[in-house]
Amino acid sequence: MRSHYCGQVNETLVGETVTLAGWVNRRRDLGGVIFIDMRDRDGIVQVVFDPEQSAAIDKADSLRQEFCIQIEGKVLARPEGQINSDMKTGKIEVLAQQLTILNRSNALPIDFNSEVSEEQRLRFRYLDLRRPVMNDKIRFRAKVTSFVRRFLDGQDFLDIETPMLTRATPEGARDYLVPSRTHKGKFFALPQSPQLFKQLLMMSGFDRYYQIVKCFRDEDLRADRQPEFTQIDIETSFMSAEQVREVTEKLVRELFQELLNVDLGDFPSMPYSEAMSRYGSDKPDLRNPLELVDVADILKDVEFKVFAGPANDAKGRVAAIKVPGGAAKLSRKNIDDYAKFVEIYGAKGLAWLKVNDIAQGRDGLQSPILKFLPDEALTPLLERVAAEDGDILFFGADSAIVVTEALGALRLKLGEDLELNENGWRPLWVVDFPMFEATDEGLFALHHPFTAPVGVTADELEANPEAAISNAYDMVLNGCEVGGGSVRIHDSALQSAVFRILGISDEEANEKFGFLLEALKYGTPPHAGLAFGLDRLVMLMVGAQSIRDVIAFPKTTTAACVLTDAPGYANTQALDELGIAVKALKEKG
Amino acid sequence: MRSHYCGQVNETLVGETVTLAGWVNRRRDLGGVIFIDMRDRDGIVQVVFDPEQSAAIDKADSLRQEFCIQIEGKVLARPEGQINSDMKTGKIEVLAQQLTILNRSNALPIDFNSEVSEEQRLRFRYLDLRRPVMNDKIRFRAKVTSFVRRFLDGQDFLDIETPMLTRATPEGARDYLVPSRTHKGKFFALPQSPQLFKQLLMMSGFDRYYQIVKCFRDEDLRADRQPEFTQIDIETSFMSAEQVREVTEKLVRELFQELLNVDLGDFPSMPYSEAMSRYGSDKPDLRNPLELVDVADILKDVEFKVFAGPANDAKGRVAAIKVPGGAAKLSRKNIDDYAKFVEIYGAKGLAWLKVNDIAQGRDGLQSPILKFLPDEALTPLLERVAAEDGDILFFGADSAIVVTEALGALRLKLGEDLELNENGWRPLWVVDFPMFEATDEGLFALHHPFTAPVGVTADELEANPEAAISNAYDMVLNGCEVGGGSVRIHDSALQSAVFRILGISDEEANEKFGFLLEALKYGTPPHAGLAFGLDRLVMLMVGAQSIRDVIAFPKTTTAACVLTDAPGYANTQALDELGIAVKALKEKG
Repeated sequence: MRSHYCGQVNETLVGETVTLAGWVNRRRDLGGVIFIDMRDRDGIVQVVFDPEQSAAIDKADSLRQEFCIQIEGKVLARPEGQINSDMKTGKIEVLAQQLTILNRSNALPIDFNSEVSEEQRLRFRYLDLRRPVMNDKIRFRAKVTSFVRRFLDGQDFLDIETPMLTRATPEGARDYLVPSRTHKGKFFALPQSPQLFKQLLMMSGFDRYYQIVKCFRDEDLRADRQPEFTQIDIETSFMSAEQVREVTEKLVRELFQELLNVDLGDFPSMPYSEAMSRYGSDKPDLRNPLELVDVADILKDVEFKVFAGPANDAKGRVAAIKVPGGAAKLSRKNIDDYAKFVEIYGAKGLAWLKVNDIAQGRDGLQSPILKFLPDEALTPLLERVAAEDGDILFFGADSAIVVTEALGALRLKLGEDLELNENGWRPLWVVDFPMFEATDEGLFALHHPFTAPVGVTADELEANPEAAISNAYDMVLNGCEVGGGSVRIHDSALQSAVFRILGISDEEANEKFGFLLEALKYGTPPHAGLAFGLDRLVMLMVGAQSIRDVIAFPKTTTAACVLTDAPGYANTQALDELGIAVKALKEKG
Repeated sequence: MRSHYCGQVNETLVGETVTLAGWVNRRRDLGGVIFIDMRDRDGIVQVVFDPEQSAAIDKADSLRQEFCIQIEGKVLARPEGQINSDMKTGKIEVLAQQLTILNRSNALPIDFNSEVSEEQRLRFRYLDLRRPVMNDKIRFRAKVTSFVRRFLDGQDFLDIETPMLTRATPEGARDYLVPSRTHKGKFFALPQSPQLFKQLLMMSGFDRYYQIVKCFRDEDLRADRQPEFTQIDIETSFMSAEQVREVTEKLVRELFQELLNVDLGDFPSMPYSEAMSRYGSDKPDLRNPLELVDVADILKDVEFKVFAGPANDAKGRVAAIKVPGGAAKLSRKNIDDYAKFVEIYGAKGLAWLKVNDIAQGRDGLQSPILKFLPDEALTPLLERVAAEDGDILFFGADSAIVVTEALGALRLKLGEDLELNENGWRPLWVVDFPMFEATDEGLFALHHPFTAPVGVTADELEANPEAAISNAYDMVLNGCEVGGGSVRIHDSALQSAVFRILGISDEEANEKFGFLLEALKYGTPPHAGLAFGLDRLVMLMVGAQSIRDVIAFPKTTTAACVLTDAPGYANTQALDELGIAVKALKEKG
């Protein structure tokens, strides 16, 4: 029904007849001549209905926005003054000779040219997606997945599907459950990730696996989460952590080179401890020049208990952030707002110090806590942070967790507010994570319980679990974790030890992971892998504000689809067949 | 950890040192020398531990089947007499110099070399999949999906994901339901196909879409169905049925050429009516030379009511199948068994006639019904079927539905039993389906209710729905429907008319498909598509007996996973949070 896409019609076709199919993007009438901006997936071209040259002029008069049309016409060079150099097709126009109205359109419920609420955009998603700005994002995503597949196919990875109807996991509280009709009273779970299946695929000898796969998490949707999201899931046998990082780094580097013409260079590696200490985050945004500087050693002898307390506590931390040029830029009001901001992270206050004129000594400084800082602390403090005139220092002094989180968050906020972030892309690997995180309720796995520790036996691990470092790695890009993975445990004794450390009894482990523990007994190869969050990666690449913009049919922040009105009520007969009943009937009203 | 895959070590590497990683496939001891068949995903190579030349001989002595090992060794040409020309690596062996045992294996619960129950194979699927015969099937599947993606990418199709958590459909009885935590008492449904979303993608202007996507159907699993299965899902805008068939036929033709070196040629098209009349099936297996031959006109005046009744009934059918050479091959016992077989399809008997010596006239024929057939029927009957000496004829006389189904099934059974089917591949398109099927409960859509009729307006369709032909097409290969599709309705009046014809009230249509009917009002383009059943296509290509053999982790025929023991019981807290309760507790015991 077409000879060319609209966006392909250019000056090389002048004089030729083309057939186009698409939509009326815009219509203008000028002195009896009708101009249509005709749009399809590839672009926009100007179509002219001229009463003196076009038989279709009468029919064209009925055209309205988003009518679906087919035209046949002759490509003409635009007169000199009418060339539009902003348009790919701006040097030509198409003089319509035939017009077929394929479908009419009611007046649109959303205006393509002004801000529309996200609710309306999602309700009429099929119209929202017609907008080039949205259409391009989804097309870009298709280019990303196509590139990723070609790259991994080229590296001998096998695309293998894993089940969607799976066994509930221990983190089951966040599982979507699916009642079984055949086995009444029992439930499948939708996978939070194909983790165990990809390990089973390594045990099956497939050597290199990948899958671009939907995963599910039924949780309160924070700002930018989706109940169903997509992973680029990768697993390998007989490869070290370094080799997995090498191949996945190459994938991302070539992806950026091919689709964005950006050279990401080699990714630096940073231990988790350094990331937390210098950036207050396990996914540091290196575009932001600010750093956390530890100053506990300098302040541990001051009388000011706010500082001295945490400085002398093994679990405390005292650190400063220096904002160059911040003294003049930040008003008292700004500083108060930042103090409130860090309260979110548990900080009880936010001490600050402005360096107005360092040559004047104390008189050149301004701070509510100046009086608590004797010279023998102040001088080395200013030296440690390399303070210069115009700087402002912020201080955090509390438990290490609170200081790290609060200053880590403050660092990001200052970077944004003061537009300190450099442009471009700053990837890195964060490595050497602790195996376990200690909480009041016991030890938790920082990654997942199938992650291998570095260089310890099962006995050594159980003897001192908190000291163990995991062989895990996160790929971080501009402050987002875009991928994460690890070497997995391939030894059943070590796997059992990790379950015990996590407080999972042998009985519970057997019930939940018996098949895994058993599989580990039959020559499981060493294996390691990684998973990328595709939605987030694409979001970063296209510069979208939300992953919802790179998903064709996303759910709202309350996990609903306003387009199809899902979820909905099930009919009683269906529930009967499943052997379940809805308790919350009162909501149905 | 390896320099080569096992299967890649060949005579070009003689004299070189290689590092291999894989499994002990088999171990033999010959006069103190240990021979290991070492296996990885790519093949098997013979590794030799020679006490006179190999330091690793002691460690090698502990090797057992399926130990996971790494070896370093020197590639040697095999002595003349020991060359194994059946093996890719049969001209060489590797003299082991270093051995690392990466993981040990318990004695295997399944024997790789003898028949094992499917239950055991599925329970230890990770071992079952290590067998080259299984590993190859899954690898082949990955090659198929990779080829399909490259082909469709090359044709400007966009890979776009559609939701897995969707609205329940009207065929909802077979939906897997997913209770929502956020919206208690409400349910998502897992998609039986992305049909409506792919239509919405066309309404969104994406022009050409594809997705290799999981679909779900919660039904009693017949012989070879899976609760989750995979579709190659395709949709296009502005393309005719012929164009969709052309591109999808090209896809399959090139797929067979590339992966099987088979030229499928051009696919013939056959109207549904012809397929039913000649083959008694809407997916005829053209490898089978037998055909149904209508003989009602010849038999309508005989006194034998069994024939004359249906022959004079507008809804009846009388037809014959001629089996060349069948007279001698089929015993009375065989014929009785076939009579029982057709009873499954509602036939009340199976008349037959053996042609022993046609030159002798009646004396050369043998049949219980010979006496009911006067010469004026017998002669044209034998002419119509071109009977020759040695043939047997089977007759069906009943309602058209029963005769068509029974003789269609008998045709397939005879083809198999008598090994009549030719080898090779016989693809075809079945086209010109009726829009609706009349049943006692009203009209049903033969495809789905979004299928467009050929050449009628909404009014014309409503006036005479049973006469309407749909613009649908099935791709059939060797008697399997491997793909099916249609032109879709892009006009809201026509869509509403189809809903009414199907007995769906306007109110019900609006509740269930309001979003579709609304979307049709905003310049929906003409669109058409097709979906392939990937599992079945791969099964045919690799010659597997079941789709379970081409799915890494299939469910059993009772829709369970015996490997992970899913589905399982949910904990009460999880159910509470979902606002549902299990009624069938007694099953829990």
